Amino acid sequence: MRILGVDPGLTRCGLGVVESGAARRVTMLDVRVATSPSTLETPARLAQIADVVEAMLDEHRPEAVAMERIFARSDVSTIMGTAQVSGVIMLAAERRGLPLSLYTPSEVKAAVTGDGRAGKEQVTFMVTRLLGLAQAPRPADAADALAIAIAHAWRGGAAPVGSAATTPAQRRWTEAEKAARRRG
Amino acid sequence: MRILGVDPGLTRCGLGVVESGAARRVTMLDVRVATSPSTLETPARLAQIADVVEAMLDEHRPEAVAMERIFARSDVSTIMGTAQVSGVIMLAAERRGLPLSLYTPSEVKAAVTGDGRAGKEQVTFMVTRLLGLAQAPRPADAADALAIAIAHAWRGGAAPVGSAATTPAQRRWTEAEKAARRRG
Repeated sequence: MRILGVDPGLTRCGLGVVESGAARRVTMLDVRVATSPSTLETPARLAQIADVVEAMLDEHRPEAVAMERIFARSDVSTIMGTAQVSGVIMLAAERRGLPLSLYTPSEVKAAVTGDGRAGKEQVTFMVTRLLGLAQAPRPADAADALAIAIAHAWRGGAAPVGSAATTPAQRRWTEAEKAARRRG
Repeated sequence: MRILGVDPGLTRCGLGVVESGAARRVTMLDVRVATSPSTLETPARLAQIADVVEAMLDEHRPEAVAMERIFARSDVSTIMGTAQVSGVIMLAAERRGLPLSLYTPSEVKAAVTGDGRAGKEQVTFMVTRLLGLAQAPRPADAADALAIAIAHAWRGGAAPVGSAATTPAQRRWTEAEKAARRRG
């Protein structure tokens, strides 16, 4: 299953395309951070972000979109722009007939690190390991978008851990999990 | 000048097209309230609203869009949906090359009634008179959208009042203003 993960934002919008296969294997197809300068008016900023999102949807043709859920009680200085971006992305998904799922930051952290209160560095570390990347995705918005896509790929199931891990991907998960625990 | 006024909302989105002419004359070309049921998921609701907005933009070809400004400290139960709708409408305007202006409720009330703290009934009353309508636009979202369009048509100038009123539209304004004052 191919998934576009989105960490919505008006200044920086993280976008990651992940393909999930058998045995919870996940690979990265693309990662970008769409940006817009605060010197522009909001409509022009939304269009800049929407252009990148729509280009990725049309290029990679994901089967689903997963996005971070926004709360009305979040940081009020950025909440309006984030909500507006999320609306634009929801419409783009809907008009392509793609199901869109929302995940809280805690759900995403729990899915990729096993700890709903994990820090940004731990999320980035696990995303890098799980996707078998040579370098950590930067900035954090990019790693977050990939984490959201992985969370969606894995929803509804427990992560394979311990001696049951038999595939290379599962071993990588287990090792990374242990390493993360040592660091955490 | 032809203006689309928007009172954004996910459950009800007021939309009014107003044409402004010489001597502050304003006429109504169209008014609608786009709705979406709360039983649908947000992406589908946004698409229902966006379809109506885009149809009106394409049918009436306004030269500008005027929308109510949303504040992060508004009612939290509806603020997210309202912000998402506003983002979708901003993108639709931007992609058609239309300038979009935002007005606070106080600015709109002051423009059409002379009182920034006027009630909904007074706004509806003045909108009905100013546009020379036989019936008051209902629901309030429809009247609000028309009031926002009128506010944009008149921005940057004082309303003609008193003995200086010479055109039929100006006389109508003056009479309506007096009537509103008597009622207020």
